[in-house]
Amino acid sequence: MENMTPAEVKTFLMGQVKTGKLATVRADGRPHVVPVWFTMDGDDLLFNTWHTSVKAKNMQRDPRVCICVDDEAPPFSFVQIEGTVTFSDDLAEIRHWATEIGGRYMGAEQAQAFGERNGVPGELLVRVTPTKILAKKNVSA
Amino acid sequence: MENMTPAEVKTFLMGQVKTGKLATVRADGRPHVVPVWFTMDGDDLLFNTWHTSVKAKNMQRDPRVCICVDDEAPPFSFVQIEGTVTFSDDLAEIRHWATEIGGRYMGAEQAQAFGERNGVPGELLVRVTPTKILAKKNVSA
Repeated sequence: MENMTPAEVKTFLMGQVKTGKLATVRADGRPHVVPVWFTMDGDDLLFNTWHTSVKAKNMQRDPRVCICVDDEAPPFSFVQIEGTVTFSDDLAEIRHWATEIGGRYMGAEQAQAFGERNGVPGELLVRVTPTKILAKKNVSA
Repeated sequence: MENMTPAEVKTFLMGQVKTGKLATVRADGRPHVVPVWFTMDGDDLLFNTWHTSVKAKNMQRDPRVCICVDDEAPPFSFVQIEGTVTFSDDLAEIRHWATEIGGRYMGAEQAQAFGERNGVPGELLVRVTPTKILAKKNVSA
């Protein structure tokens, strides 16, 4: 098992498309983890969520999150990002990033439709500013 | 987006090999998520961990966990398991399940070596007994 370089981390996160697994904490202290579609803006990770989703409510209560992205085949690798979130409900900004994200996960031809569907009042843009990154490659080597 | 049937959940978890993303909570309340190699024994999920790992310490403090397993390609699907963990430090049991898990992720020819490497004092077998399962298919359809 070896550490990835910062350049390898960026390629790992933004190259072949993978989902992020977003971990947050519920009001009663239980952990919660769900897949999210994300993109990056500089070093920040961005994703959309509906304002009443479990993850949205958890992040509004406590902005500390942890995201894991991994390669599930030998020799296995993963990036774990700890960070804090901020929210935007600016529709133009949400629509812009939702279009980017939709293109990444669903293909360019569906990007705009995805952006429009998610660029509506009640949807939030979540920006994760990393505080610590753990990135390991060749885990099983 | 549709719910999976219980049979679909089992096939999703035990068919084509995927890693689980295990979410736990740190002492200071921050969420933590890492990939784990798992298998199943009936409805329980089993995995190994070293007794001083971050996840082990978190689970020893609070046995409530959440695990996410997902298919990262269109039309996207995921299973989210909430549960509580119990530990075993019985070496024969650890070795048995580590061999199963090693075979699943690394191939049959490496199963025994993996079992022996992980069947050592200090390693723990973690058994997750599900309390709630959320299972969605055709997320983007």
